[in-house]
Amino acid sequence: MAKNLTTRSEDYSKWYNELVIKADLAENSGVRGCMVIKPYGFAIWERMQAELDRMFKETGHQNAYFPIFIPKSYFSKEASHVDGFAKECAVVTHYRLMNDENGKIVVDPSAKLEEELIVRPTSETIIWDTYRKWIQSYRDLPLLINQWANVVRWEMRTRLFLRTAEFLWQEGHTAHATEKEAIAEAEQMMNVYATFVENYMAVPVIKGLKTESERFAGALETYCIEALMQDGKALQAGTSHFLGQNFAKAFDVKFADKDGSQDYVWATSWGVSTRLMGALVMTHSDDNGLVLPPTLAPDQVVIVPIYRDEEQLAAVSEVADKLVAELRTKGIRVKFDNRDTQKPGWKFNEYELKGVPLRIAIGPKDVEKGTVELARRDTLEKEFVNQDDVLNRIEHLLDEIQKNLFKKAAAYRESHTSEVETYEEFKEVLENKGGFILAHWDGTPETEDRIKNETKATIRCIPLERDTTPGKCMVTGNPSAGKVLFAKAY
Amino acid sequence: MAKNLTTRSEDYSKWYNELVIKADLAENSGVRGCMVIKPYGFAIWERMQAELDRMFKETGHQNAYFPIFIPKSYFSKEASHVDGFAKECAVVTHYRLMNDENGKIVVDPSAKLEEELIVRPTSETIIWDTYRKWIQSYRDLPLLINQWANVVRWEMRTRLFLRTAEFLWQEGHTAHATEKEAIAEAEQMMNVYATFVENYMAVPVIKGLKTESERFAGALETYCIEALMQDGKALQAGTSHFLGQNFAKAFDVKFADKDGSQDYVWATSWGVSTRLMGALVMTHSDDNGLVLPPTLAPDQVVIVPIYRDEEQLAAVSEVADKLVAELRTKGIRVKFDNRDTQKPGWKFNEYELKGVPLRIAIGPKDVEKGTVELARRDTLEKEFVNQDDVLNRIEHLLDEIQKNLFKKAAAYRESHTSEVETYEEFKEVLENKGGFILAHWDGTPETEDRIKNETKATIRCIPLERDTTPGKCMVTGNPSAGKVLFAKAY
Repeated sequence: MAKNLTTRSEDYSKWYNELVIKADLAENSGVRGCMVIKPYGFAIWERMQAELDRMFKETGHQNAYFPIFIPKSYFSKEASHVDGFAKECAVVTHYRLMNDENGKIVVDPSAKLEEELIVRPTSETIIWDTYRKWIQSYRDLPLLINQWANVVRWEMRTRLFLRTAEFLWQEGHTAHATEKEAIAEAEQMMNVYATFVENYMAVPVIKGLKTESERFAGALETYCIEALMQDGKALQAGTSHFLGQNFAKAFDVKFADKDGSQDYVWATSWGVSTRLMGALVMTHSDDNGLVLPPTLAPDQVVIVPIYRDEEQLAAVSEVADKLVAELRTKGIRVKFDNRDTQKPGWKFNEYELKGVPLRIAIGPKDVEKGTVELARRDTLEKEFVNQDDVLNRIEHLLDEIQKNLFKKAAAYRESHTSEVETYEEFKEVLENKGGFILAHWDGTPETEDRIKNETKATIRCIPLERDTTPGKCMVTGNPSAGKVLFAKAY
Repeated sequence: MAKNLTTRSEDYSKWYNELVIKADLAENSGVRGCMVIKPYGFAIWERMQAELDRMFKETGHQNAYFPIFIPKSYFSKEASHVDGFAKECAVVTHYRLMNDENGKIVVDPSAKLEEELIVRPTSETIIWDTYRKWIQSYRDLPLLINQWANVVRWEMRTRLFLRTAEFLWQEGHTAHATEKEAIAEAEQMMNVYATFVENYMAVPVIKGLKTESERFAGALETYCIEALMQDGKALQAGTSHFLGQNFAKAFDVKFADKDGSQDYVWATSWGVSTRLMGALVMTHSDDNGLVLPPTLAPDQVVIVPIYRDEEQLAAVSEVADKLVAELRTKGIRVKFDNRDTQKPGWKFNEYELKGVPLRIAIGPKDVEKGTVELARRDTLEKEFVNQDDVLNRIEHLLDEIQKNLFKKAAAYRESHTSEVETYEEFKEVLENKGGFILAHWDGTPETEDRIKNETKATIRCIPLERDTTPGKCMVTGNPSAGKVLFAKAY
């Protein structure tokens, strides 16, 4: 490889890490487990944010902002919630530094907080403490709020985007008058996530419910979308939780109904994070570098001039500038890379690595013939196109690439989804082929645990759309209401 | 007052606090000094962000994201920087909670960090530690990066938006090959801020340089924009720092020039924060509530139907719906408030409090006559307009209101800017009139300190545009190169 990238077949995990760094998406920082999201990576995340934010607003949600710190006592109010997060908390204990007698900077012991503050790993507790003040009557419901924020979970083994101590995300927190409405909201947001991930990221997902042991700490039901990466491992791409009245009770949030009766409100929360960046990279990219879906690519088209002298550059630039102007009118993101500090070959390589969907090369011969050379990143196919036709061709190809990426990922998933009847078969498929495996399970956490311990595979979800023919659990032989989805997961 | 707001003349400070809370902009949280930004306040901040972000990108900047935590040792590398921030740092010392023998949640003493982490009060150190890896050659320069982030400064006395322990901001951090280029960047960003604050927030500002003692910790020069609030106090609305080679030297960031020679790079940093929300409120609002400039108002126009029965509502709605559709086509943000849970009077009051620039009322008589009633928030003037003319009238008025707010604020500032020759006069004006005061100063920190201690007024800036007729310091009689701008400040 010209880029000296490890290939996927050599070492998938190494390929991923190298790619994220070499394609300028992110890198490790000097702070354990915390990443720096580089400008190119952040530009992709910004596009994701913009689309999601639009979808949230279209479904009636508003943004707000809540404190990054959570008093320790808040955190303890919902029992299962604190159990779920206590082991991975960054704790602020002091609020001042000072110089010691040797002039060294140390923590000022006299500036100890009376109550420690937790850097939010998620914001249910601080938000529900606030909602108590915002909700009095049915008129205040539903309350549909989203927050874009950074959160911290002290992970021991971290990987860029997939698992980092600090990450960026959005967290929706809604309050409703009825259980039914809250469940409908949780389902709606799972569907919003699925639509976004499939239509913008071109990543096919399976919608489902988590088993009890995989649920969010404090939730009665967790909806999720699960995607399959190119190494046959699953990645949870988003979750939406029906929280029942747990947080309302813990924080005493009641409302007066139309008839004057008081009741606790019903809650949901839902989130996706910079983890989606990992899913994007791992679903589409190849041994030559990133492959980005056109909808999210910071540059959808890049134009590279081929020239020997200033005169040739001037002629090529005339064609390129016109094309740039036309593409921008159509709302297509295009860059004309006329830097003279790098050669065309270097540029070709660079944009392949960065996953730019379409690359156009224009040389003196093209100027003469009225053509340009068009190369698509997904298939690496090249073609010459008349300058008169190029605008339509580009529009068509961007659309085509978007569809092709989804189709390819869906075909991979289909060929890597197996249905098994026995535990032997299950282990065999898991070992040799990987991917999603549909199998019968008896519905108990004990069996789920045993499978996890013996094979490292977990139940990714109970798919919402599934064959509900009853059967027998592949492990215990006990009755099963239908097959569930297993996989090894990120 | 129908809204029971304290008036500005009664108690300006109380008026501000009440208004921020009652108009649903923000409120205090259960975490000392940290605020909750409510959906209405956040919607205004989002509009500010969007415009600023566009301006940053138009001037060649890209967004990125750096860790929220800064290792204590990084922080100490730039001496004046740590001095400036050490006294107000939130310090993370542990990374886990646990149950004690009584089942209480406590900090796990065994999970103590080897090196404490500071929650960023600003990100120069972590960013420059990263830039060392990004910058090798002149080809990597200029590096023009911005970050939207939350930061924490442990303030003892806090006020919503103006001074909070956690706040939201953007921080630009750029690296350049030459001193000249870095200074030009710092000046450019001050100008970007001034343009934004004047054109979008309708707040006139004075551009200038901070004195040495008011400079950012680690800067060689701090550019600022200063605004004047309605109580005659100044508010620093944005700063842009020329950092020289201080951070490059502290973090060893060198580049190879075209001729192969190695040199430290030159730096700037610049930021504005949610403090701007405070400036927006305090500049324009009145005793009836918020007054928002149309460019930043979440709703620019609100339509309130007046009706007695369903039939009347249907007739009114027909006119309103048509108008809503037409306004949206023009990109005007409009809300038709047809809730039947609140009376028109309540709605009028509410939108006055919330500062919606234009309110339209439509009743059965308007349907008959083909008119609507139009009320502008800034002057509280009302007029009847033919439905055929209303679209043009609204466009005109939104423009007019934007200009009027700026004009009014500029007039206030002009009438509250005094020029004095003696210290007596200075103290007299400060006491009785407040506002900006131009006076001669001998250029020493000692005199500056004395004035601050004796009068609480500080030098807001050395204006870039000023009368440079030399004179004598009003305090010491020593030579002065020109008058500087004083005020009591937020």
